[in-house]
Amino acid sequence: MTGFRLGVVQLQVTGAKADNLSRARGLVKEAAGKGSKVVLLPECFNSPYGTSFFSAYAERIPGESTQVLSEAARENKVYLVGGSIPEEDGGKLYNSCTVFAPDGELILKHRKIHLFDIDVPGKIRFQESETLSPGDSLSVFETPFCKVGVGICYDMRFAELAQLYSRKGCQLLLYPGAFNMTTGPAHWELLQRGRALDNQVYVATASPARDETASYVAWGHSTVVNPWAAVLDCIIVSTSCVYLQYLADIRQQIPITAQRRDDLYAVTSVQEGSG
Amino acid sequence: MTGFRLGVVQLQVTGAKADNLSRARGLVKEAAGKGSKVVLLPECFNSPYGTSFFSAYAERIPGESTQVLSEAARENKVYLVGGSIPEEDGGKLYNSCTVFAPDGELILKHRKIHLFDIDVPGKIRFQESETLSPGDSLSVFETPFCKVGVGICYDMRFAELAQLYSRKGCQLLLYPGAFNMTTGPAHWELLQRGRALDNQVYVATASPARDETASYVAWGHSTVVNPWAAVLDCIIVSTSCVYLQYLADIRQQIPITAQRRDDLYAVTSVQEGSG
Repeated sequence: MTGFRLGVVQLQVTGAKADNLSRARGLVKEAAGKGSKVVLLPECFNSPYGTSFFSAYAERIPGESTQVLSEAARENKVYLVGGSIPEEDGGKLYNSCTVFAPDGELILKHRKIHLFDIDVPGKIRFQESETLSPGDSLSVFETPFCKVGVGICYDMRFAELAQLYSRKGCQLLLYPGAFNMTTGPAHWELLQRGRALDNQVYVATASPARDETASYVAWGHSTVVNPWAAVLDCIIVSTSCVYLQYLADIRQQIPITAQRRDDLYAVTSVQEGSG
Repeated sequence: MTGFRLGVVQLQVTGAKADNLSRARGLVKEAAGKGSKVVLLPECFNSPYGTSFFSAYAERIPGESTQVLSEAARENKVYLVGGSIPEEDGGKLYNSCTVFAPDGELILKHRKIHLFDIDVPGKIRFQESETLSPGDSLSVFETPFCKVGVGICYDMRFAELAQLYSRKGCQLLLYPGAFNMTTGPAHWELLQRGRALDNQVYVATASPARDETASYVAWGHSTVVNPWAAVLDCIIVSTSCVYLQYLADIRQQIPITAQRRDDLYAVTSVQEGSG
């Protein structure tokens, strides 16, 4: 297996959950029709993003939204990385990504481990921790093509997570995310290109489409980056090729993986999670 | 102390060592005259970059070149980060950066710890390890302004080094470097911006000036990046302001340092060096 097609769906998200689910289902089918074997949806693909919405739209897992994801995965025979939804469990809310195998089985649940709490005066203040609780597990899943690591949005700012995923053998990192109009232009692409270059992996993000009328305006710019840090695609519905041979070539050409000075430093997992 | 001026010298380097030393001395004076308190010179500032040159130009430390650096630091009352020179010690060659205090005292020697061994077919093949030996120490020095971490060129590709420097309290990372016409346009700026953003520090590089007639053509583009990942300067002789208050502001606005999940992962030093 030297490569496969990755589908990235930049979804228009509204307050109508049924419409969001239906639209997502249609675009997963479209991406699969173009040959995608793995399809990625955006963060909060089933509901508006915002602390005032999480509770109202929260579901248990399994539930309505994950049922649709499971069916879409099975119908299209794809690995479906279902962006994220607000999850309710035991009285707490999480920002959770579910991953389904081509047979429709739930194979992974990643709860965002770094909550988005920032305050850039005059630009953006957001405190997910006002309503959400963080997950505590690293999240990796296997495909016949390669191992994949999953984070959600703000998780991408933490280099260590990507480093651990890479050391666990992941060749593709997927981050459903919804950066905003301040951090988006400043850091969205840079973070993806940095993660790809530092770890010599493919990196992809899926964002909600930009809606200037929303209370939280997403930057959009869903992106696929290769391990040379080149942006392959920046898109609405994309199907990019992940060439594992190219990845192997890059790792041979600039062999930083083998050249790391493990005698001088270490990046370690303190508490093993689901990965 | 809320900030200070950093001088970055992009030096024209030829095969005439005396000329290189004299030119460097003049530009250190110029940068100091513009108010710089810390001045950075390029990798291999005293001689051409290339495995065929290292042996011929190698010196012991202290030696001719470091004597000039010491005098330039003292005469201009600056911290002088002397790029690098080929160093000979005990029959081995190193790519070494020396740092001098404003009184002319040698306060740090960093030997490049990640040797530049890459092979991008049809573009660039370079194997420093054919002639050089690696250093084994992390390298940090103190100034009245802030703590500073030092790496040389290819060291910048290794995220862990910057992470450790940041965790040791460095607010400025300096990388004398000489990327080439393949890796320069692809990765030079990205690496600096990534290190700055991930660790919320200032990052600066100094490159030899581009000489299209040299056997190794340096990319140039000496750069200063702030902790928001904005490029402050990309230059020939630059004096940029390092505002520690701005750095503190950024760390408060997007508090990833405090938000790190130390319960989940760790970046650790395996073998403590001079830092």
